[in-house]
Amino acid sequence: MLKLFYAVGTCALASHIALEEAGAEYDAVRLDFRTNDQRKPEYLAINPKGRVPALVTDDGVLTETPAILAFVAQSFPSAGLAPMADPFAFACVQAFNSYLCSTVHVAHAHRMRGYRWADDPAAIEEMRRKAPAAVGECFDLIERKMIEGPWVMGEAYTVCDPYLFTLARWLEADGVNPARLPKIQDHRRRMSERPAVRKALAEELSPAQQ
Amino acid sequence: MLKLFYAVGTCALASHIALEEAGAEYDAVRLDFRTNDQRKPEYLAINPKGRVPALVTDDGVLTETPAILAFVAQSFPSAGLAPMADPFAFACVQAFNSYLCSTVHVAHAHRMRGYRWADDPAAIEEMRRKAPAAVGECFDLIERKMIEGPWVMGEAYTVCDPYLFTLARWLEADGVNPARLPKIQDHRRRMSERPAVRKALAEELSPAQQ
Repeated sequence: MLKLFYAVGTCALASHIALEEAGAEYDAVRLDFRTNDQRKPEYLAINPKGRVPALVTDDGVLTETPAILAFVAQSFPSAGLAPMADPFAFACVQAFNSYLCSTVHVAHAHRMRGYRWADDPAAIEEMRRKAPAAVGECFDLIERKMIEGPWVMGEAYTVCDPYLFTLARWLEADGVNPARLPKIQDHRRRMSERPAVRKALAEELSPAQQ
Repeated sequence: MLKLFYAVGTCALASHIALEEAGAEYDAVRLDFRTNDQRKPEYLAINPKGRVPALVTDDGVLTETPAILAFVAQSFPSAGLAPMADPFAFACVQAFNSYLCSTVHVAHAHRMRGYRWADDPAAIEEMRRKAPAAVGECFDLIERKMIEGPWVMGEAYTVCDPYLFTLARWLEADGVNPARLPKIQDHRRRMSERPAVRKALAEELSPAQQ
């Protein structure tokens, strides 16, 4: 049985949606970042990085969103969540997800987690100030060059879609006006209507588990 | 015919080594960052991100190191550079490479490219100051938890190895003393002896092409 560790409002939502889309059987376990669950010894024993998501499988623990997304796609092939048999098409999926994790999510992280890269409060505040510009630049590139439409990779819905949706949900909080991003706005709207997305969000937004 | 765009001293070395390990036929095209080749219109037409690596294939252009590495592994299966048929094992490869691109390379980038996330020179200088600590923390985790040995994934050499080697070559410049990282030091030494690594490095360090 798969077990997904997530926290509300984090990129773990992408893996959560993908598990739903795949029709996987899994348990979702919520960590509370306000009480630093992710830094407690019992969680560090699962994921020494102290981050989410982490997916516990029968073979061991997986971390890192692009890896978990491709694992879900490959493990549930009938869901057709990635073109695994076509090296170029699969690499396009991976390139998109890699850009999200290494550039888009990183630009976003400078708004809230600047302490990772600086100690001086003034520098941390300066990163927060620039985050809307840095995040906006990433999404402008996605809007102009990286969405085929209607889904990220074109006609086929893939694991790129829940990942884009997850990061695009942060646009307003990141200070980026989505009105300038019509394709991404449309993508968010269509994603919100999918049963898998509704189910994952409902679970994440339900009252805390015991 | 594959064509790899790279620049000296960048993470493109990982893809370059992987192509050599795979026995691929390819052309390597050097960009000069000192003259901002990566920002010139002819290159932005290939890769609108203005970064390296970019791999031109018969089907289109691929970017992002983890995607290119998996593409090379999948396109040249006889080289055995990734356990493609085993979803969990392949996800472990991807998780490692995803950590390198989203966390390790990002920590490194704050030493030289802080302008991506701040405009104020004092903030950029503060990021530079903290880079040795941030990079060191990543490599400490790799050393303690993420290298199976003798290669990253254990007995099998995979595309994780050229990527780790590439980022670990920056340790001294990043202000991290490799003496505290014996496994990574040993990995660097063994990588340096591989013919594919020697060939890729020799090409990158040869006099500029015309």
